[in-house]
Amino acid sequence: MPQYVVVLAEPKNEGNVGAVARAMMNFGVEDLILVNPCEIGVVAEKRAMRAIEILKSARTYETLEEALKEVDFVVGTSGVDTASDRRFIRIALGPDEASAKLAEMDGKVGLLFGREDFGLLNPELMKCDMLIRIPSSEDYPILNLSHAVSVVLYELFKPTAEKRERRKASGHEKEKLQEHFVKLLDAINYPEHKMERTKMMFRRLMGRATPSKWEFHALMGVIGEAAKRLDKES
Amino acid sequence: MPQYVVVLAEPKNEGNVGAVARAMMNFGVEDLILVNPCEIGVVAEKRAMRAIEILKSARTYETLEEALKEVDFVVGTSGVDTASDRRFIRIALGPDEASAKLAEMDGKVGLLFGREDFGLLNPELMKCDMLIRIPSSEDYPILNLSHAVSVVLYELFKPTAEKRERRKASGHEKEKLQEHFVKLLDAINYPEHKMERTKMMFRRLMGRATPSKWEFHALMGVIGEAAKRLDKES
Repeated sequence: MPQYVVVLAEPKNEGNVGAVARAMMNFGVEDLILVNPCEIGVVAEKRAMRAIEILKSARTYETLEEALKEVDFVVGTSGVDTASDRRFIRIALGPDEASAKLAEMDGKVGLLFGREDFGLLNPELMKCDMLIRIPSSEDYPILNLSHAVSVVLYELFKPTAEKRERRKASGHEKEKLQEHFVKLLDAINYPEHKMERTKMMFRRLMGRATPSKWEFHALMGVIGEAAKRLDKES
Repeated sequence: MPQYVVVLAEPKNEGNVGAVARAMMNFGVEDLILVNPCEIGVVAEKRAMRAIEILKSARTYETLEEALKEVDFVVGTSGVDTASDRRFIRIALGPDEASAKLAEMDGKVGLLFGREDFGLLNPELMKCDMLIRIPSSEDYPILNLSHAVSVVLYELFKPTAEKRERRKASGHEKEKLQEHFVKLLDAINYPEHKMERTKMMFRRLMGRATPSKWEFHALMGVIGEAAKRLDKES
């Protein structure tokens, strides 16, 4: 995994810069570079909320050239779609595709976001090694700056989170639940010719629902108990 | 695809409400419901930018119960992780998993977002048919309201955009480029025993790069021309 740095090119609204800092902390990115920014004051600090340290430790450069000396690979963001294939400097990946490719890299990756009004200018786009475009409505494709940062950082954070949070397959519980369900079918004298299909239906249903360990046990409790009581009655 | 409605429970900051309206328009969702909101004035309108109509046509209800009569299925958002499996009311899907499941539904789906400070309260969470949690840093998991809305709507919009934008496989160009590359290898008298591996390497490289039609032709132009010139020289 590379180390990510957010680079804002000439942000004009300090509230946005504060909101960007907050989004960065939400998604575990701490390194902020500002290129020729507006004044950063109390409005930015208020919007940064608990990410005030990111804002305070941000580095400021006069030009993008200087800023990019800090990074090994530059990823730009483009709000505008490429109407023509020939306008190749705007051919972009989706944030999810970009995330998959970047996850395999090492070093320092700069995530470059443009001005609130004009985005990144052509000479800036040409410095980018990769371009990301957030899919959005044709009626209004221009996202707020901190919204764009949030979506991109969310996609970059996702693989880390998935590793951490992936739900256990619960193979044991899965089969136990299925057994209980079959016992229930037996207990209610379920018609033999419908048996296989209904068993399969239940397995598939649970597959789509992907219950947690606890949910499995809760459901097994109910079904198991029902089967047991029906068994006694007969 | 269902029709999505954004429902904000007791938003306290009108700027956030405006920013939510903008994010909605960016991702093609137009229907906004406010439950017992703060006053919505010029600050909200300014932040909504071109999404002013969404803000103006928002419906306001006193209680969540009334608001939810408008929708068929309620998706809540939870910032807090479920420490225990047993606290099942907070067991949540990632926005991408939720997007996949929701895409198969019909009817009106309400996307319920909580207060800026306390999120959704337990009685509100219990009204939800599905819960989404945005993966985020353990150090600071609480996103700004409009950031959370942006990430969720982005994931819901993605399948639509992918259908529209999926890049053509360019099978013809792909093979033509490979032919040109092989001609180049021949023209430089590339060592026979390295041939197959290098051809494979190039194919894989292009596979990962997924060039556009235009990029294919540009690259073929270069490689083809080089091969032709080398051929003449020999």
